[in-house]
Amino acid sequence: MKLLLIGFGVVGQGLAEILRDKAAELKREHNFAAEIIGVATARKGSLYLPNGLDITALLRAAEGGSFADFPDQPGLRRGMTVAEMIALGEADVLVEASPTNLETAQPALDYCHQALEAGMHLALANKGPVALGYAGLQAKARAKGLLMRYEATVMAGTPTMHLAEDALAGCEIRSARGILNGTTNYILTQMESGMSYHDALMQAQALGYAETDPAGDVEGWDAAGKVLILANALFGSELALADLDVSGITNISAADIADAKAAGQRYKLIARAAPDGGQVRATRLPLDDPLASVGGSTNAITLETDLMGDITLIGAGAGKLETGAAILSDLLAIERQAGAK
Amino acid sequence: MKLLLIGFGVVGQGLAEILRDKAAELKREHNFAAEIIGVATARKGSLYLPNGLDITALLRAAEGGSFADFPDQPGLRRGMTVAEMIALGEADVLVEASPTNLETAQPALDYCHQALEAGMHLALANKGPVALGYAGLQAKARAKGLLMRYEATVMAGTPTMHLAEDALAGCEIRSARGILNGTTNYILTQMESGMSYHDALMQAQALGYAETDPAGDVEGWDAAGKVLILANALFGSELALADLDVSGITNISAADIADAKAAGQRYKLIARAAPDGGQVRATRLPLDDPLASVGGSTNAITLETDLMGDITLIGAGAGKLETGAAILSDLLAIERQAGAK
Repeated sequence: MKLLLIGFGVVGQGLAEILRDKAAELKREHNFAAEIIGVATARKGSLYLPNGLDITALLRAAEGGSFADFPDQPGLRRGMTVAEMIALGEADVLVEASPTNLETAQPALDYCHQALEAGMHLALANKGPVALGYAGLQAKARAKGLLMRYEATVMAGTPTMHLAEDALAGCEIRSARGILNGTTNYILTQMESGMSYHDALMQAQALGYAETDPAGDVEGWDAAGKVLILANALFGSELALADLDVSGITNISAADIADAKAAGQRYKLIARAAPDGGQVRATRLPLDDPLASVGGSTNAITLETDLMGDITLIGAGAGKLETGAAILSDLLAIERQAGAK
Repeated sequence: MKLLLIGFGVVGQGLAEILRDKAAELKREHNFAAEIIGVATARKGSLYLPNGLDITALLRAAEGGSFADFPDQPGLRRGMTVAEMIALGEADVLVEASPTNLETAQPALDYCHQALEAGMHLALANKGPVALGYAGLQAKARAKGLLMRYEATVMAGTPTMHLAEDALAGCEIRSARGILNGTTNYILTQMESGMSYHDALMQAQALGYAETDPAGDVEGWDAAGKVLILANALFGSELALADLDVSGITNISAADIADAKAAGQRYKLIARAAPDGGQVRATRLPLDDPLASVGGSTNAITLETDLMGDITLIGAGAGKLETGAAILSDLLAIERQAGAK
């Protein structure tokens, strides 16, 4: 399977490491072998080599901050645009792992359309195209007999989409509600232990959970992007961010947390998608709700089904290998379902 | 897809109801249609009709306790043995939903071998053949290009095996530990609320969780059967029940429960499978272990993985529709992966 990789930050590097370190195991257990034939980034440059880039050299160059240090070799092309790489038509799958833009989903959304038109499957870690352009991408993929997968966009490697779309096939999912943002869950957990909001946020930033500008997390927009993805994928809703009822944790005080605790409850930022819409809202949960016991930066989701009752999945919501592994699981699913070209 | 159904108790009836009530939805969403062409039971008799038995009539006859009341019609055969039904070679899948025997796995194990030899896929709710005969069945299935699936054997419909085998493909699973018996979890939960072991057991029996002879549950053997299934399926272990370290909850006293509670812990009957063996043992868990908050008859499992850390799945461990839906999910997976013959 030949891959074009857009973005080479934490997630792309995680995938590359896994493909290198698990090559023998993947060949043996899944008869699967993948080559990264092109990598395009906004800041490190881009590289293209039809018979596959050396992953160790790629990771080393990325560590130095620029692909300029990637060794020359016959056939290597530098500085190509994404559109040029796609136009060559040599890749089987476009892996979109560039930073999420929840306002326009660009430029990733255009790349995804171009890749489908060129006959490539999609594996996305970038939430933008799935949150904002799902229906159009899915329609194009189906018309061309291609697959669009996006396990990494919700709960990183924790296989939410596999669970909902494959493992629960045959069930009707009535709603999905979960803790889909690790930063806010970490802050709420620390506040319950007596830390102030301000200190908990500083600590989350120091640990790398929260961005320097934490607004996307604490105001609920990151979770809202995931609500759109779930609403699109599970319910065929065509919602926009503006259709959701979104609030974050910025107005939850230490007194609120203490009140909830005294009442045997716990605040969680609950993201919910259902056929009638979506919300992100800080919510007091009883302690026997499986979501109530999910602490720290861990994520969790409860799917309400017609035949199997409530099914809850708990796991990491971020991380280099966790997210890289999610993309790998999508590549394996593509291999199983469609075969590489 | 043509099905031979062995056993028509709660699980078989659950599957039949779902196939009837979801027929239109399954056709529309999965292009899937299944007919039950044969049903064989130990006590109700057996029926065979190559173009499919009417499910409503089948359920009505089962309610009356005997297939003698199933209406006559052209082509209907009564009283055939399982071996005779298999020998006709008309079915695509053998669904084994007769009662589990963890000592010999018979007669189900023989039926499964015969069905594979006749070119049929397997979908099992009966734990016996998977716990005791996994390696031989899997080898035969692979040699013939057939699938053996058994989602219903662990945690009923909660998609444990889909999660471990499909959704986490690409990860190495290092261990599986969980609450795999609902009866004992119900009893421990009630004891923590102050009920005596004796009263909690009586209540579990009244609610239909525990059998009249509860030994298989409370002494850990039901959970041990599931440990064998996980050990076989995830680690390729060829363990027997005698290789496991099994104890139940019969020696856990109210004082033990109170002790644990005072220490901020909670007793759970933890079943564990790992490459080095398996155990079933009442264990004190810290309250922040995701398994600690799983109360009542609910089941849960934590898979420890190399790339994604710990993934926990929580859901029903029994139930008519829940278990029937597990078999349906296997049939859909067989349809996707192999296509009906």
